[in-house]
Amino acid sequence: MSAQQPTPNLSSHLTALFANTPDQQKPTSLLTSVLPTLISSIGSVANALRTTQGVSQVGTANAFGDDQLNVDVIAEDILRDAIASCPSIRTASSEEDPVEKAVQHKHRDGATPHANAGDEVVGAIIGIWRGESALNSDPSTQQIGAILGVFGPRTTAVVALRVPGTGVDVCFEVAVSDGASEFPVVRPSIKLDDAPFKTRYFAPANLRAAGEEPRYMALLNHFIENRYTLRYCGGLVPDIVHALVKGHGVYVSPVTATSKAKLRRLYELAPIALIMECAGGMAVDASDGKNVLERQIGDTDERAGLICGTKEEVEFVRKSLLE
Amino acid sequence: MSAQQPTPNLSSHLTALFANTPDQQKPTSLLTSVLPTLISSIGSVANALRTTQGVSQVGTANAFGDDQLNVDVIAEDILRDAIASCPSIRTASSEEDPVEKAVQHKHRDGATPHANAGDEVVGAIIGIWRGESALNSDPSTQQIGAILGVFGPRTTAVVALRVPGTGVDVCFEVAVSDGASEFPVVRPSIKLDDAPFKTRYFAPANLRAAGEEPRYMALLNHFIENRYTLRYCGGLVPDIVHALVKGHGVYVSPVTATSKAKLRRLYELAPIALIMECAGGMAVDASDGKNVLERQIGDTDERAGLICGTKEEVEFVRKSLLE
Repeated sequence: MSAQQPTPNLSSHLTALFANTPDQQKPTSLLTSVLPTLISSIGSVANALRTTQGVSQVGTANAFGDDQLNVDVIAEDILRDAIASCPSIRTASSEEDPVEKAVQHKHRDGATPHANAGDEVVGAIIGIWRGESALNSDPSTQQIGAILGVFGPRTTAVVALRVPGTGVDVCFEVAVSDGASEFPVVRPSIKLDDAPFKTRYFAPANLRAAGEEPRYMALLNHFIENRYTLRYCGGLVPDIVHALVKGHGVYVSPVTATSKAKLRRLYELAPIALIMECAGGMAVDASDGKNVLERQIGDTDERAGLICGTKEEVEFVRKSLLE
Repeated sequence: MSAQQPTPNLSSHLTALFANTPDQQKPTSLLTSVLPTLISSIGSVANALRTTQGVSQVGTANAFGDDQLNVDVIAEDILRDAIASCPSIRTASSEEDPVEKAVQHKHRDGATPHANAGDEVVGAIIGIWRGESALNSDPSTQQIGAILGVFGPRTTAVVALRVPGTGVDVCFEVAVSDGASEFPVVRPSIKLDDAPFKTRYFAPANLRAAGEEPRYMALLNHFIENRYTLRYCGGLVPDIVHALVKGHGVYVSPVTATSKAKLRRLYELAPIALIMECAGGMAVDASDGKNVLERQIGDTDERAGLICGTKEEVEFVRKSLLE
């Protein structure tokens, strides 16, 4: 994108991306209703985060405690309202209410989004699936979209789309302002870099586990000795988005004998895996190294570990921890 | 603070904190002009961060590169304008313009603030000093205030005040909304916890240096084996504020044979040390373990490493790295 071109927004960007898609394969309701509505709701959640500062003033000294619970509930409500306003969304579930339920509205037709409201203070994770249920279906073809809501000083949304039969496989980022109906594209194409890398980043989740798992400790030493840069803020969305923005990174959330898997397959692993794949990276299950999107999900509460990021780093970590 | 009490704002909170200070020792211009003006400017910087999303759309694919430079310049301008509007501020300097210069306004009387505009994307660091210059003066008595501007999904300001002769030594946090003239107190008193700690946090900066410095590697192993929780996002302000919010933490930015000191004594170490001391913690120079506020600063560009946080952790790290 040069400085001379007009700035695209979400709708014009989607029109351009799907220009060569045959009409009968074009996911019209996804592009014109589901995506703009969900992205708009991310702006509303960000606004709620800013304006519910009053909540933390009353009765609690710790904004990361009770206050966060209030914000989670508010965010869940906002996303549920957004989903109810999309006629094409039939079913929804979330970490806060992990049972797939029919969405109550007048028209039904199209995709099944699953909104994760568990991580709202710093991010939101949304997976969009074809069909009535995301369970017991093939994630690699049935999860057709994912959104990461990034609540930093600026609010943005990272969007990944994979439309079966069209060859369209994209990841991009839009700016989300409160109440805006247009979303300017701030990164038209997010792609992880190829080697050589200027700076290599690693994000080791649950680093305590390295104390009891020599392979994780050896991996940590490998990163340090090879002068990787540490970035681990502990928020799944910002830690993932950091790699996307920098063009390199590997996120490691291992599962060991004494540390249980924490991340939900449906609400966290699957959408993040789609984002990573559409950005040219990969995501594997930390227990067995299997590609995240190759495994069907049987229950909304299934949990796992995660290794994701730049392909060669993910392969290296998989070998280091699992072979 | 119970839910029944009215929410204090900055001005009523300061009035209460200084209720027993003799009039002749009361830093009136600091309380009624300098603090509100600088805190308000943090709201303006946050607003600029949000609304300059357009900048990143034109000509640059990486919002952490050129875009950040634009935002730094905008933030510097906003803080300079705020400083110029305070009659009691005589001199100012910043990382962007590191020469102490007389502030151009009609009235002169009072303190010398030094605004650091180098870290604006995720935070701002401001030190407020008595007298014409912060250089070659005693930081432990002459730096009378510090502000951390926190640009997350919500904008807040952490304020530390130490007024000589009054025994007042406080740290608190206010919410900062765009254009607001009142700043609600969200944490009336920030104090690091005493042992036992629920969760212990560590933030190891420049972890690459552990590859060449066995003592840093041994320290890392100590944290892992003792099940400390890693939080290191790489932004100085959020990494420091995390410890304050959680009530525990240690930030370690070591200086080794091959990794040079990066943090500015005037713009980063001194204000953060005041915040830490007013919150019941401590901050020492990573080269020699000397208390940060015991060392005079001779030049605006002097740099150092930093160990700060909970007292007992800082003592342990000092011994581990330096003895």
